[in-house]
Amino acid sequence: MSDTVGKPIKCKAAICWGAGEPLKVEEVEVAPPQAHEVRIRILYTGICHTDEYTRSGKDPEGLFPVILGHEGGGVVESIGEGVTSVAVGDHVIPLYTAECKECKFCKSGKTNLCGKVRATQGKGLMPDSTSRFTKDGQPIHHFMGTSTFSQYTVVADVSVVSVDKKAPLEKVCLLGCGITTAWGAVVKQPGIKGSSVAVFGCGAIGLGVIATSALVGASSIIAVDTNPGKESWAKKMGATQFINPTTLPEGKKIQDHLVEITDGGLDYTFDATGNVHVMRAALEACHKGWGVSTIIGVAAAGQEISTRPFQLVTGRVWRGSAFGGVKGRTEIPGLVEDYLNGKVKIDEYVTHHRKFLEINDGFNDMHAGDCIRCVVDMTVL
Amino acid sequence: MSDTVGKPIKCKAAICWGAGEPLKVEEVEVAPPQAHEVRIRILYTGICHTDEYTRSGKDPEGLFPVILGHEGGGVVESIGEGVTSVAVGDHVIPLYTAECKECKFCKSGKTNLCGKVRATQGKGLMPDSTSRFTKDGQPIHHFMGTSTFSQYTVVADVSVVSVDKKAPLEKVCLLGCGITTAWGAVVKQPGIKGSSVAVFGCGAIGLGVIATSALVGASSIIAVDTNPGKESWAKKMGATQFINPTTLPEGKKIQDHLVEITDGGLDYTFDATGNVHVMRAALEACHKGWGVSTIIGVAAAGQEISTRPFQLVTGRVWRGSAFGGVKGRTEIPGLVEDYLNGKVKIDEYVTHHRKFLEINDGFNDMHAGDCIRCVVDMTVL
Repeated sequence: MSDTVGKPIKCKAAICWGAGEPLKVEEVEVAPPQAHEVRIRILYTGICHTDEYTRSGKDPEGLFPVILGHEGGGVVESIGEGVTSVAVGDHVIPLYTAECKECKFCKSGKTNLCGKVRATQGKGLMPDSTSRFTKDGQPIHHFMGTSTFSQYTVVADVSVVSVDKKAPLEKVCLLGCGITTAWGAVVKQPGIKGSSVAVFGCGAIGLGVIATSALVGASSIIAVDTNPGKESWAKKMGATQFINPTTLPEGKKIQDHLVEITDGGLDYTFDATGNVHVMRAALEACHKGWGVSTIIGVAAAGQEISTRPFQLVTGRVWRGSAFGGVKGRTEIPGLVEDYLNGKVKIDEYVTHHRKFLEINDGFNDMHAGDCIRCVVDMTVL
Repeated sequence: MSDTVGKPIKCKAAICWGAGEPLKVEEVEVAPPQAHEVRIRILYTGICHTDEYTRSGKDPEGLFPVILGHEGGGVVESIGEGVTSVAVGDHVIPLYTAECKECKFCKSGKTNLCGKVRATQGKGLMPDSTSRFTKDGQPIHHFMGTSTFSQYTVVADVSVVSVDKKAPLEKVCLLGCGITTAWGAVVKQPGIKGSSVAVFGCGAIGLGVIATSALVGASSIIAVDTNPGKESWAKKMGATQFINPTTLPEGKKIQDHLVEITDGGLDYTFDATGNVHVMRAALEACHKGWGVSTIIGVAAAGQEISTRPFQLVTGRVWRGSAFGGVKGRTEIPGLVEDYLNGKVKIDEYVTHHRKFLEINDGFNDMHAGDCIRCVVDMTVL
């Protein structure tokens, strides 16, 4: 047993002190886990657009100061009373979508959303409504129940899953958000095998949707992105066609073009952009009578999607998916096995690596068109 | 064989000569059916809001002069070459949603929409791009491929179904639109048994959704209408609760009220109003994680539905349904049997009767709050 058990740990964390400010890597104190909590030594973390959304101040529900990060991998340092699902030394992935297996949502069999820690997580706090992070005595908010931009973090025991130690954490950390979200959005949608698919946006999520659509046997996969540099990426992941909407004749809408070239529209479309206008295009590119459009991207606050109701009355379905509809504790261990068996790609998404002290450069990497995912090594300053 | 076979028939039809004008019951000439066409003596017809939508001029695709009507019942007077699915003397219901059983749509197994006569039907013409109706030599447009406001009409053989002669046509004519639309919207939606349902709008369609939800075993059915007179109607059809949104505290949205009183929202909601704001309320009244909202009502031209994409990302599904997803030729005979066996209500919906010459009064009846359906007797001037 480590001599840190039951004691506060001093370590480095990247704190965002206010909306729009860069992160500052500083020493924080991480309190020991309380009952049904787990303290994790984070080794690697991805950087995702949702971190940037809150950092930038665009998220009206953003709280500061805060330790961001929700795509991490680490090792359990200690556990609080009553924790049975993970053990000290386990390799784990924190989950921003908890799975308590007991609430109305978990027991419904219809959704991966869980109500257990929702309210306090949204307030940047642990389930007892306090924070485990302090900087010189000042509490720092948690983020999405995970806060992986810290060398140590504390999460609820319903918000973490153990994975096979054979899997490298610098890769499977990405199962904490992007890859799993994309994978689930496709495999949870019946009917994609043998069907036509269009994917709007070729970031990590969009590429993951392409790869998973190819994995389950879509008959055709059209990738749509305004960045021509994404064509080779999309095709590498399995897209059969790439369309850059900015190259269409002036005034030609992408949805009208897609309906024309696919004899009536796509069977399935996915928005992986977070842009509400693209979400509309994705719906309207669906085939009359049966097309299903799934929103994966997160839109900016206050923005709304619109369409003519005729689009739905004539048989299109508009749905969405959070964390790909995946129940993290139940399903991520299997995803890790699929990765180890070569069925699910992860390595291909990691284009950039950063040391912890370079984390703000990692945010800049994300804005560059050639970055799919940047993984930060939390152990190297 | 009738001596009218192969000859034009002179009869009375209600012509709408221009947008916003009242109908005029005048003598028209109805040409004999061409190959794969059926001429029908219409005995009864309902009046539906879609007729009024086109009559009023609000429908930008409305064509004039036109013979409206799409909820009729009649007897086959003669058939064109190659017609095998109906015979002279059959009791039939014209279908505005055709079923050819051969096109991509019909064969998909995923939709009741049919592509066969779609293009010409939208232009107010028969499949050979001409009209069978003339008034003093001037062609009059068909409407929705049915034109039941005429004592004789001609329809494509894919747009008509024979029904049991034991069923009174003055009742089962309503299966041509309203009752079938409502029935199908519910029975084609898996999961309603044992679930909570809310229905927005208690016209014929909304009441039909209530009745069918009760039939399939919904655990609770909340009816929503701004007309307090609809409460007794809704409860008679099976609603367990009636809410008049205008009686809520000022500023209280109906969707928020429903989410509160149902511990998180409804499993299924239906819009039967055609009002895009109500469509939004119906979606947002759904339970997070699994609620499904179905749009049945037809919105006015140019109007759009909107919501925050978060509503869908957190597990609500927005869909729609045309003619209830019902394949008319395949399924209406069974619905007629269900009516004859007392499983499906029709008689209850008929609140008003009109002679043919009073058809404009029938339109006025529809606007009155106490009318569910007005049936016009085409044989009585």
